Amino acid sequence: MYQFDQSLELFNRASKVIPGGIYGHVTPATVIPGASPYYASKAEGAYYWDADNNKYIDFMCGYGPTILGYNHPEIEEAAREQKLKGSVFNHPTDKMVELAEVLTERINFADWAVFAKNGSDLTTWAVQVARETTGNKGILKAKGSYHGVDAWCSPGKGGIIDEDLANVYHFEWNDLQNFEEEFQKNLQNLACVILTPYHHPVFQDNLLADSDFLPNIQKICNKHGVVFILDDVRAGFRLHENGSHEYFNFQPDISVYCKALGNGHAISAAVGRDHLKVPASKVFLTGSYWNDAVSMAAAIQCLKIVQRDKVPDIVEKLGSQLKAGLEKTALKHGFELKITGPVSMPYLRFKDEDNLYKIQEFCKICISKGAFFHPHHNWFLSAAHKEKEILDAIQIADFAFAKMKPNE
Amino acid sequence: MYQFDQSLELFNRASKVIPGGIYGHVTPATVIPGASPYYASKAEGAYYWDADNNKYIDFMCGYGPTILGYNHPEIEEAAREQKLKGSVFNHPTDKMVELAEVLTERINFADWAVFAKNGSDLTTWAVQVARETTGNKGILKAKGSYHGVDAWCSPGKGGIIDEDLANVYHFEWNDLQNFEEEFQKNLQNLACVILTPYHHPVFQDNLLADSDFLPNIQKICNKHGVVFILDDVRAGFRLHENGSHEYFNFQPDISVYCKALGNGHAISAAVGRDHLKVPASKVFLTGSYWNDAVSMAAAIQCLKIVQRDKVPDIVEKLGSQLKAGLEKTALKHGFELKITGPVSMPYLRFKDEDNLYKIQEFCKICISKGAFFHPHHNWFLSAAHKEKEILDAIQIADFAFAKMKPNE
Repeated sequence: MYQFDQSLELFNRASKVIPGGIYGHVTPATVIPGASPYYASKAEGAYYWDADNNKYIDFMCGYGPTILGYNHPEIEEAAREQKLKGSVFNHPTDKMVELAEVLTERINFADWAVFAKNGSDLTTWAVQVARETTGNKGILKAKGSYHGVDAWCSPGKGGIIDEDLANVYHFEWNDLQNFEEEFQKNLQNLACVILTPYHHPVFQDNLLADSDFLPNIQKICNKHGVVFILDDVRAGFRLHENGSHEYFNFQPDISVYCKALGNGHAISAAVGRDHLKVPASKVFLTGSYWNDAVSMAAAIQCLKIVQRDKVPDIVEKLGSQLKAGLEKTALKHGFELKITGPVSMPYLRFKDEDNLYKIQEFCKICISKGAFFHPHHNWFLSAAHKEKEILDAIQIADFAFAKMKPNE
Repeated sequence: MYQFDQSLELFNRASKVIPGGIYGHVTPATVIPGASPYYASKAEGAYYWDADNNKYIDFMCGYGPTILGYNHPEIEEAAREQKLKGSVFNHPTDKMVELAEVLTERINFADWAVFAKNGSDLTTWAVQVARETTGNKGILKAKGSYHGVDAWCSPGKGGIIDEDLANVYHFEWNDLQNFEEEFQKNLQNLACVILTPYHHPVFQDNLLADSDFLPNIQKICNKHGVVFILDDVRAGFRLHENGSHEYFNFQPDISVYCKALGNGHAISAAVGRDHLKVPASKVFLTGSYWNDAVSMAAAIQCLKIVQRDKVPDIVEKLGSQLKAGLEKTALKHGFELKITGPVSMPYLRFKDEDNLYKIQEFCKICISKGAFFHPHHNWFLSAAHKEKEILDAIQIADFAFAKMKPNE
């Protein structure tokens, strides 16, 4: 069984000099206090080691980025080659032009691209482009959706003021009638509709859309000149090599990508349609490091490999194996699981559970045996996972279910 | 004389797939269309090469970051060493704790630190911490100040709505009476005062503060429990190894750093006082790559070198030489320059000029001879600049002034 002494020691030091010790999506408060690693020390492929040198089969991929696995040789070679020339200059480099060309060629509705460092940088900018385009202020989004940390969408309440939320409207995911009601009610002030390609609310089952939901939203937005923004930050390039809208058969006006774009190199991108290009050029967009050529070189290479190796097919196959294996093993021990969302980004809970006790207990045991499962965030699979890692993880789950001794 | 064919060819390609071709602070619209490099290809020390392989003595340092020069061996060694272990994980690493410890030890008022990727990420977050602390909404800032790209402070108007600016108040830099008037008038709603350590408005002379201006603002903020935020994004660690507030003899409640923190590796930091630690922990703060250990390793090393080598002294001495040399050379040719701001970050114009014609002409000639001077942004010096680069640049300026043939 794993010990976490170094993690706890680092956390104690951190608590003295960092608010909350660890903050944001990696906070241990969302994992399992005292029974989970708090700090990482190294990673390779589908594995990582924590501060106590415990080794894990990783099922989070850094919360998404490492779609090809940690320290991928071809990505790191492309990054190293660019780093020798430089990263942040007084100007962009040819890598920015090349990456914009690759994205606009690959993504069927995209006529232009821009780049930043984080998903929020560009979901917020996309909203501003919609406001500049329409002259309206309103944002219509799904209840419980996550679009980043900026004030209009932050899941936190701290420091948020009424004005931040003044023009934000909500509808129920997958309820087209409710969508149309909210859309019509707010149409006079509506700048954009922003959606993720499937619904991944915090601490809840993930929901795919009914087959006509997203195409209908597209139709309604187009008809009324409301900008349809796809927040593909989490899922982009994991479901489909050319963006998740192709996987779900619709087309937005703007898409935002981040997580899997650079295989861990810090970069985000927004792409959009031609009629938004002039308004897009009028919304100020910049950052000290946003022209960084190294992350762009990594992204060009990552997009190439995702296509060449059919990575979305690989992670879908692995995800199906994992899902089937976990469900079957759970049943063997008398547990019924509910696994939702795309299989390559599964969200797992115990079907009969109305709190998070069992899933925390399950993850705690798996973690202590070397499989890093997250108790209340969707997991991520990478192309570095092989059948061995899936089978090893299912075996660890088998041990955990057995140990949990259900009432039979 | 330099040609810019490759830059123009890349720009033509870019214009097809990127709004405006190049956007943000590196847009060629703020340099000299057709007579300036648009794209960089490599850099080393105090020099960079553009897409046409023209070589420049650099006086922008990537708009600030490379305080030690491009591709600094000790920084890159620290980054490489961490990169072999990994960068973005499911957790932070010990580097985050270490960097927070270094900053809170070095910065006299700082009890805690947090990290992100861009200056705006944390100027905006600091405002939210002030709102969370005070329960008020108002932001008091200097007219014309630059605090980043977020809606409350963006220098652009595109996509900005009234609600973004509803609680933003302004005062005239260096006018303590005007500050007190605006402070008192808005006190009931005031969350924070945010300032840069000296005033660097866009396209205008830079202004240092009168000696009692900043200490008085500190006193007034403290007395009324208004959070005093220092935006040290541009100047931090170039004026003083422990932050610009020490150079100017005052103490804020929160400081934000970015440009010179990682010598080109993407990182920003905010530090603050103990009484803000709990509110700080309540304002949600996260980003896909914000725990990146490589940029933190680079920042730890950069802070060490800035202190060890007394880098602020080096760049101040270089800046003094450059300022004196340019002024003297200009006078020789009948031109009078006005060089404002700290000498290590000088802002230059022609004294009698009421438009930007002469400074553009001057920079155009210098650029074509291999000194990259910016016509309407402050310049930046680095520790990689030696006397040779300063003397060579003055010689190029001499050629430019001679060519400009003033009326005598």
